[in-house]
Amino acid sequence: MSITQPRGFSASATTAGLKPSGKPDLALITRSDAADRRPHATGCAMVFTQNRLVGAPITIGRRIRHALLSSTPQSPAPIPRALLINAGNSNSATGQQGIDDATTCCSALAAHLGLAPAQVIPSSTGIIGRLLPTDKIVSALPALVASLSTGDQADSAAMGAIMTTDLVPKHASAEAVIEGHLVKVGAIGKGAGMIAPRLDSASRATAPSATMLVFITTDAAIDTPTLQLALDSAADASFNRISVDNHASCSDTAICLSSGLAPPVDPAAPILPAGSMPPIRPGTRQFDQFIDLLRTVCADLANQIVSDGEGATRIFTVHVAGARSDLDARQIAREVVNSPLVKCAVHGRDPNWGRIVTAAGNAGVDFDPNHCSLTLADATQPDRAVHVFTEGRPNPEALKNPDLKAAMSAKHIAMHLRVGTGPGAWHFTGCDLSAEYVRVNADYTT
Amino acid sequence: MSITQPRGFSASATTAGLKPSGKPDLALITRSDAADRRPHATGCAMVFTQNRLVGAPITIGRRIRHALLSSTPQSPAPIPRALLINAGNSNSATGQQGIDDATTCCSALAAHLGLAPAQVIPSSTGIIGRLLPTDKIVSALPALVASLSTGDQADSAAMGAIMTTDLVPKHASAEAVIEGHLVKVGAIGKGAGMIAPRLDSASRATAPSATMLVFITTDAAIDTPTLQLALDSAADASFNRISVDNHASCSDTAICLSSGLAPPVDPAAPILPAGSMPPIRPGTRQFDQFIDLLRTVCADLANQIVSDGEGATRIFTVHVAGARSDLDARQIAREVVNSPLVKCAVHGRDPNWGRIVTAAGNAGVDFDPNHCSLTLADATQPDRAVHVFTEGRPNPEALKNPDLKAAMSAKHIAMHLRVGTGPGAWHFTGCDLSAEYVRVNADYTT
Repeated sequence: MSITQPRGFSASATTAGLKPSGKPDLALITRSDAADRRPHATGCAMVFTQNRLVGAPITIGRRIRHALLSSTPQSPAPIPRALLINAGNSNSATGQQGIDDATTCCSALAAHLGLAPAQVIPSSTGIIGRLLPTDKIVSALPALVASLSTGDQADSAAMGAIMTTDLVPKHASAEAVIEGHLVKVGAIGKGAGMIAPRLDSASRATAPSATMLVFITTDAAIDTPTLQLALDSAADASFNRISVDNHASCSDTAICLSSGLAPPVDPAAPILPAGSMPPIRPGTRQFDQFIDLLRTVCADLANQIVSDGEGATRIFTVHVAGARSDLDARQIAREVVNSPLVKCAVHGRDPNWGRIVTAAGNAGVDFDPNHCSLTLADATQPDRAVHVFTEGRPNPEALKNPDLKAAMSAKHIAMHLRVGTGPGAWHFTGCDLSAEYVRVNADYTT
Repeated sequence: MSITQPRGFSASATTAGLKPSGKPDLALITRSDAADRRPHATGCAMVFTQNRLVGAPITIGRRIRHALLSSTPQSPAPIPRALLINAGNSNSATGQQGIDDATTCCSALAAHLGLAPAQVIPSSTGIIGRLLPTDKIVSALPALVASLSTGDQADSAAMGAIMTTDLVPKHASAEAVIEGHLVKVGAIGKGAGMIAPRLDSASRATAPSATMLVFITTDAAIDTPTLQLALDSAADASFNRISVDNHASCSDTAICLSSGLAPPVDPAAPILPAGSMPPIRPGTRQFDQFIDLLRTVCADLANQIVSDGEGATRIFTVHVAGARSDLDARQIAREVVNSPLVKCAVHGRDPNWGRIVTAAGNAGVDFDPNHCSLTLADATQPDRAVHVFTEGRPNPEALKNPDLKAAMSAKHIAMHLRVGTGPGAWHFTGCDLSAEYVRVNADYTT
């Protein structure tokens, strides 16, 4: 189904007692040691929140990433192959104690698995500003390790344990033949509130935005630096284009592990014990194929996350075109997606397009309102788009068009906003704002 | 009570038929021609939204402002002395037709009053993207002009006619003795949604943000350029520090008219027909006194506007200190005030301070979380502030402190966030997010 579908991965979950509900709250994903025999075909890539205040797991993850990316053949850093994930406590705003606590848990798990501590990456989601109950987690580790397995049950268990305010568990998978090998990508994710990821990349300091946690596995043969490039690109095209509440969490994380164990598709070819797929290199056709596969999985999960946004009943995508630059277009799209007035109009199925164009005008980006045009459509029926505003002038007849009502009632609304004749374009997806959103977040007592 | 309290001003209101409710929707404020005899003691200052898309009245107002500020003794621009304000239609996103429509109404009023068209400034608030029904407005002008008067009834009528989703009418006034003269400032305002003003100033291009309309009168002797400096300063310290929904309107406006007719406080002094107060000059003690007076009135109105924010039940002020600069502090304060998660926590009286510090971390401003501290208090009881987060570490005992519950239940919560040891400080005031907010904005059908 998801993370144990690609070859070389196992998963498990258990209950450590961190969630008030008493539901499972601890998950483990591991990569088999079979992959270790081909270090150039295995890797680990990570992207994290750009919030200035980060959870202890982010600090640890960044240190591991830094070591991996500055690793040399002379002094190789061990490639991580265990992800220890808890829900119910985010281990954020906990200072040095938080880092020590996460390290305690990871070291204990490493000892169980026979790994170096730096081969275990922690992830935490839940309440902020409470110390992690390490005793509960460490006590739960033997059961967690003992139940590692593959298959749908293992995938489902891990997927359920990482949920917080999610109503729906989230997973995605895709496969493609690359270089004669059947490459699979599987992923699980969580996130419904504090969702507006602005994930960093290892190589660039980009502009910074739920707790979104995403864990991806693949049996493609790809090393850490190349996998990092692919994940940076896929995250920018997916997670970094959704927002539930424009509040980037201190814990947003996406981690991808590769095993290199994808099997040849020619059934006559011998399957080597540790895989035979040649490593994917940047700039090749195989790399483009892999990025497409990874983007497909990430876009699927991103769409699931925003659709399950707290209190959400429908989603909408703002497509901005004609801006001076992609960055300008992104700024405008983000401003529209995050306007509470636009979100309420979407909730009320109200074609109050003045809120959309004034939100755009608020983005701090220069454009000429006299060259501004807006269409609204059901995202599944783009040919029935209604032109409500054209070159700075309202179309009063649009309000009588029955397609407008249909567009605003769609489960997924497409808003196409043109702001000029420049080359810049971007799209961003958000969800409506409902009374249920307020209930979830005002009654969520800490 | 408000705008007709300072000497030299009259006001009126009538029903033109722009509001679906059939309530009064057209207001007029005029300054008497007695003031015209002392041009250096009278003035007109304006600040407008920095939204890229602006209502037709803003375009006209800016043209008038430009002409006033580039006026010379050789070719003086006539000083405006009539404000024509309608609610129910914002005349925004209406292109050149909108500008022509506003001009038609202003010219008709100017003819009634014997003024030059450029002496009438229009303001509009209401639905965006509908053409202004000029016939209705022009037909209502004779009744509007005929009912001009002074006193509480006139003030109340004007204040009521400019309301849209406001539950409470808004006015403020203050007085002080400046240079031996009793100077009064009176103001009316409206605004409950699309509130996050980022008003420009005539002299600077600052960073841009409801429909907030504010009209201020004063009998201080002060000319246009000096009054503009004072209004810029007062707006920055008041309207530009509030947010209901972080959606700056295309129509935000504050206009101040001065008459110069303040009377001497010495009852023995002769009262000249057109006032005797010497004009206030920039950089003088009198100027500082006047700015204080204007700020007091603007801060009072700003507080009324955010308190009447759509669906709001309580307000909170975020005081940021220790930032690298005031601009950094402003960015952080604004991010916290606009986080839906923080607003919901305030609504739920929930001391979920992790949302506050992570919102700060999201502001795109650099600071060291290890030097970050937060206290929460009832704004009226600062000595009972509770330290929830100190130098990057949580204070678990704070959650047991009964003062914390009292702080989160206050009608006005003070959040003091220190982010380092820098000189930068700013404060920003917002309101909670309630299910009623969603009702008002999702059911507001266009």
